[in-house]
Amino acid sequence: MTTVGILGAGQLGRMLALAGYPLGLCFRFLDPAPGAPAGQMAEHIQGDYADTATLERFSAGLDVVTYEFENVPIAAARFLAGRVPVYPPPLALEVAQDRLAEKTFFRSIGAATPPFAPVDSRESLDAAIAQIGLPAVLKTRRLGYDGKGQMVLRAPSDLDAAWAALGATPLILEGFVRFERELSILAARGRGGETAFYPLIENHHRDGILRLSLAPAPGVTSALQAEAEQIAARALTALEYVGVLAIELFEVAGDGSWEVEAGASPQYQPPSPISHLLVNEMAPRVHNSGHWTIEGAETSQFEQHLRAVLGLPLGANTPRGHSAMVNLIGALPDPSAALAIRGAHLHLYGKEPRPARKVGHITVRADAIEELQARLARALDLVR
Amino acid sequence: MTTVGILGAGQLGRMLALAGYPLGLCFRFLDPAPGAPAGQMAEHIQGDYADTATLERFSAGLDVVTYEFENVPIAAARFLAGRVPVYPPPLALEVAQDRLAEKTFFRSIGAATPPFAPVDSRESLDAAIAQIGLPAVLKTRRLGYDGKGQMVLRAPSDLDAAWAALGATPLILEGFVRFERELSILAARGRGGETAFYPLIENHHRDGILRLSLAPAPGVTSALQAEAEQIAARALTALEYVGVLAIELFEVAGDGSWEVEAGASPQYQPPSPISHLLVNEMAPRVHNSGHWTIEGAETSQFEQHLRAVLGLPLGANTPRGHSAMVNLIGALPDPSAALAIRGAHLHLYGKEPRPARKVGHITVRADAIEELQARLARALDLVR
Repeated sequence: MTTVGILGAGQLGRMLALAGYPLGLCFRFLDPAPGAPAGQMAEHIQGDYADTATLERFSAGLDVVTYEFENVPIAAARFLAGRVPVYPPPLALEVAQDRLAEKTFFRSIGAATPPFAPVDSRESLDAAIAQIGLPAVLKTRRLGYDGKGQMVLRAPSDLDAAWAALGATPLILEGFVRFERELSILAARGRGGETAFYPLIENHHRDGILRLSLAPAPGVTSALQAEAEQIAARALTALEYVGVLAIELFEVAGDGSWEVEAGASPQYQPPSPISHLLVNEMAPRVHNSGHWTIEGAETSQFEQHLRAVLGLPLGANTPRGHSAMVNLIGALPDPSAALAIRGAHLHLYGKEPRPARKVGHITVRADAIEELQARLARALDLVR
Repeated sequence: MTTVGILGAGQLGRMLALAGYPLGLCFRFLDPAPGAPAGQMAEHIQGDYADTATLERFSAGLDVVTYEFENVPIAAARFLAGRVPVYPPPLALEVAQDRLAEKTFFRSIGAATPPFAPVDSRESLDAAIAQIGLPAVLKTRRLGYDGKGQMVLRAPSDLDAAWAALGATPLILEGFVRFERELSILAARGRGGETAFYPLIENHHRDGILRLSLAPAPGVTSALQAEAEQIAARALTALEYVGVLAIELFEVAGDGSWEVEAGASPQYQPPSPISHLLVNEMAPRVHNSGHWTIEGAETSQFEQHLRAVLGLPLGANTPRGHSAMVNLIGALPDPSAALAIRGAHLHLYGKEPRPARKVGHITVRADAIEELQARLARALDLVR
């Protein structure tokens, strides 16, 4: 029996296992957290990613290793890659773990990004502000997620506090982008290089946490979808990627006249022909904005990821009607109220509710967009 | 956390667990077989259904008990029902376990069945043949499945051998029905009495084993669907049923002029107005002919069953396009070949292949029926 090892046993790992059991797969998870969501339905080795003996025990007999979060220690990924195929490739982890490397990478493949500059000292923060202007966002280069490790700078008086809070680690200053909306694209690349792209998704965040995704994103032209696919295809190829890759994008207004700040980084390249979309960041894994694919697409992102890393043919990414995904954050709704909504699908992660913690999601699906809107309104009522 | 206990840990139990984890449920299985499919992803108590100590250990802390096969010992179901809610009700088990009680039950609710007569002795076999005629099928009243425990009688010379093979247990003789096709309907009833019906499914058997299901069954009129729903609704109500119930049906030709043999059983009732469908048998559980609902319906039969037994609202039974389910029997196809078919969904049960053993299924889905036919042809090629 084919056994897949997964670093991280959170809800993404749990949903990978649920998608993989029908394919006849077995799963083994490594995660330091006791009671991690995926451990409720698969073997869970509770241990440290940095511990070689743990990694040896974890990797014994595995057919492939993948991961459900991008902050896996690179050393662990490289250690495992010496023993078992590891997909996506550790290079993708390295790029994704460092916001500076990430934005530099996307510019190197001709994709536009918001203006950015590295910040390594109080002086370089001033220099970066002089270059990029205010407002801007100061972020840690590493280990930020769900809005953590970042502060918005609106006035020069904000700088000292921000520097005091974040300055102990390498930082990046990012220009505040006036965007129309946030989108994401999920793409998959198989071991043989074949690719598949899901339709663009519209995402709504609050307090830095994804709240709502609409898929396919309303009002996307085929030209915009093609732009997104072009960015994704270039990234997949450049990284020799295998698995599902998520790219978060800003859609900018009008004719693409938004100007990339010249000299924003040493790796600056002229604005690319892909001009309606700016890359915000990528996640070398299945992604929260793709949960709707479980019911809303012919092949879920979870199955697609497993197909890719195992060298199986990719599945059809075709959407089935219209979907909306609502994250359940910090609290669980009454399950009966959720399930009473026609076309609603409840996903709970087996986690104890805590403030700002993702404990589940509801996907609402409908064949017609008007129908979806009515059902979504009811779902949103449950999380207010 | 809500924990569901399931008697039997085969593939149906496995698919119940896969459907239930997203609802935040935990599962505990009881099954005497080592390495049973559901034990790969949930707690599996390996033990005998007849052992009281085992049943006590199994039932401790459960919120509800259900089962994935109908040959659960009635005594075990009744013992458990004294401690934990057991759904579907043990009465449904009793009816389903005895072909004579089952056919008698369906006649009692005004549904037509093939002619039948109890056979308890060599003499009563002769009497039953005189009444029903040849060809006919001699079946054990209990414990038959997938074509086991039955023999077709074509000529008077077949009787002695059939009696020698089967006569040790109570039997039923069933008239040979000239039917157009085999259909099934899956219905669900919640704890509060609400009901939901899936569209009729067309089933194709070979050697007594289901090979192929088409859903929705092609060419079903709304009148025929209504007849099937009426039969199912009456059965659900009469049994005070909770959960998913499968009813296998024969569609008979023309205007319903097929005559129920008068006096075929003491419980004989006049032919009912439901005259285009004859009830073959029922299964008080999720059913092989409903596997297509995982991808082909808004709510799968597995989730629907769990919603029902837990007192949650029933989900929408709406089909999504057209589906065909092909059973994988005795051997596994190349997974890559299966997954290369667009719209194909592979389900493996984690079982070692053995002749006549169901080891998985493939569901092929398409929005248009012509598309489905092309994809199905490729899937059928894999199992030939």
